Amino acid sequence: MTEASAPGAYMRAEIFEQPDALRRLTERAGDALAPVAHRARECPFAVLAARGSSDNASIYGKYLLEGRARIPTALAAPSLYTLYGAPPRLAGGLVIGVSQSGAAADVIAVLEEGRRQGAVTLAITNTAESAITHAAEHVLLLNAGPERALAATKTVTGQFAAYAWLVAEMTGDEQLKRQLRRLPDHVSDVLALEPAIARLDQAFLQAERVVVIGRGYAYGAAHELALKLKETCFIGAHAYSAADFLHGPLAMIEPGYPVIALLTHDETLEMTVEVVRRVLGRGGRVLCLATQPAVAALAALDARPELTTLSLGRPPSLLSPIAFIVAGQLLALHLSVKLGHNPDVSRGITKVTVTK
Amino acid sequence: MTEASAPGAYMRAEIFEQPDALRRLTERAGDALAPVAHRARECPFAVLAARGSSDNASIYGKYLLEGRARIPTALAAPSLYTLYGAPPRLAGGLVIGVSQSGAAADVIAVLEEGRRQGAVTLAITNTAESAITHAAEHVLLLNAGPERALAATKTVTGQFAAYAWLVAEMTGDEQLKRQLRRLPDHVSDVLALEPAIARLDQAFLQAERVVVIGRGYAYGAAHELALKLKETCFIGAHAYSAADFLHGPLAMIEPGYPVIALLTHDETLEMTVEVVRRVLGRGGRVLCLATQPAVAALAALDARPELTTLSLGRPPSLLSPIAFIVAGQLLALHLSVKLGHNPDVSRGITKVTVTK
Repeated sequence: MTEASAPGAYMRAEIFEQPDALRRLTERAGDALAPVAHRARECPFAVLAARGSSDNASIYGKYLLEGRARIPTALAAPSLYTLYGAPPRLAGGLVIGVSQSGAAADVIAVLEEGRRQGAVTLAITNTAESAITHAAEHVLLLNAGPERALAATKTVTGQFAAYAWLVAEMTGDEQLKRQLRRLPDHVSDVLALEPAIARLDQAFLQAERVVVIGRGYAYGAAHELALKLKETCFIGAHAYSAADFLHGPLAMIEPGYPVIALLTHDETLEMTVEVVRRVLGRGGRVLCLATQPAVAALAALDARPELTTLSLGRPPSLLSPIAFIVAGQLLALHLSVKLGHNPDVSRGITKVTVTK
Repeated sequence: MTEASAPGAYMRAEIFEQPDALRRLTERAGDALAPVAHRARECPFAVLAARGSSDNASIYGKYLLEGRARIPTALAAPSLYTLYGAPPRLAGGLVIGVSQSGAAADVIAVLEEGRRQGAVTLAITNTAESAITHAAEHVLLLNAGPERALAATKTVTGQFAAYAWLVAEMTGDEQLKRQLRRLPDHVSDVLALEPAIARLDQAFLQAERVVVIGRGYAYGAAHELALKLKETCFIGAHAYSAADFLHGPLAMIEPGYPVIALLTHDETLEMTVEVVRRVLGRGGRVLCLATQPAVAALAALDARPELTTLSLGRPPSLLSPIAFIVAGQLLALHLSVKLGHNPDVSRGITKVTVTK
């Protein structure tokens, strides 16, 4: 990285590369995943191993695998493999490891254990010939191109899309495949909102804490938005499902407390709107990122300055988490730069963190 | 609740009831769980459904079921059952639902679906004849007595212990059973630390944010400490595994940022000490709650005012999470009262929250 780069220049470039990166993935994902999808279909359970943003993609993967492929899906507890030496029985299961760099030692350990025990193993990575590609029987390369900003962007949306492709192949869901082929256009629609999003960040310039609410298929995206705000803006941002939020954390909301709510036009919409209503009732401020069909559900709430809504266009509800993430990337980028940070470089963390 | 109650009086009384409540559980848990443990032993996977504190107990349950009984274990995504109508295949699996009140509609829905599909089902609750007891084939009543404070305490340690009893029965682990029988004494040892813990809370009186670090078997306890601080003190408290924390959130730590680290004498100790070192290196303040054997590992860190260590005695490492939780309850109680709150009553949330 040259000294001359403007802060966030790499992150912004990589955010805008996403439609092309997703197009490249689309060209290859179906064929690349068909063999593992065929074997995975009858697995009685799945285990997903990942860290950081890849873990957020895997939350989405869990919902897709459980809700669409009907396979009970656990997120791996890596310490059982790497520290305690007490992994669960994995034979016959599906084990997926996700790592942008392909170097995550704990993720690799889970894949290796799965393979040793006779599980179906799949690695999802952006890095050809990385260690993770040797650990799994099946490999999906994201082909997103090198990612230079500290904050992962195009590899994250690639991971989300990869899980959707896998499940589309496992279930033979032609509608989902068609939707995935149009995904780059939906992402372009969100990128076109950059000027509006750059204005929204004003509301967060003074924020020390932010809550991000998303439920169901949007829950992983809520975690990814929160992580991006933490990584790039050093804000205490935390994600909750709409249901968990009502079980206690709602009590934290005081006048002015900022909340980002992700609203999509599916069965979770009513409860998420209810959370927005409750937050506003406590004096909180809410930024709603919503699909266009979901915007109508907010009409029941009185217009007031504490409520801001941004329509992200018309992605299908199942893929709307990817639209939320792209909007969140732009928000985090602009906020980070305005706060005087540079999201391209580190403040004490490294791009590749190897833990065991 | 009478108006005359001192703030936190119910919570404190219930915290101190824990040795007796755990003794009552110990008398019955083995026999009560033997039938379900026998059936659960060969299940290829498990699904755990819970909310709030019960969910934190289930994180611990996941580690125990995976690490000790070797069963891949997923935390349920309730929305797939209650909203999307798209539950995973559960036949042959073990499905556990945990609810203090026994009224949690989404937890009940997961159990009912499991039973309908032919899973082995177990309800863990404190409330006899509650709805959850009719949803599952097997029931474990915690018998902790009525819980009147808003913040759950004795039912939570009961749930943690219930998971340990279940796994001890599933694996025929006589050592763990002996350790569980001595657990009330270890809890009493922590309760005797109340004066010291009440002094520790001074360090958090100005805190708006707190991070709680625990890994492996202590990860669920870290979540429970964070939830208790959120519920009773309205502090933005968040839990991380030591590994996840190094993957990004570490960047949030600025001079004075308060961190609570849970240290036990097992394979996670070295990495957790490393996190303490890194936090101190960034100027953060760390309160270490540590088992006595783990305290020695902190000797490598220079003594400094930003590092405070409290030894919780000598619980076995596998049960040390329960000691951490009890210390965290006392910390939350005293901090809440000093901040002018009353942890016995609500600030916008209700004791029984029913979501679907």
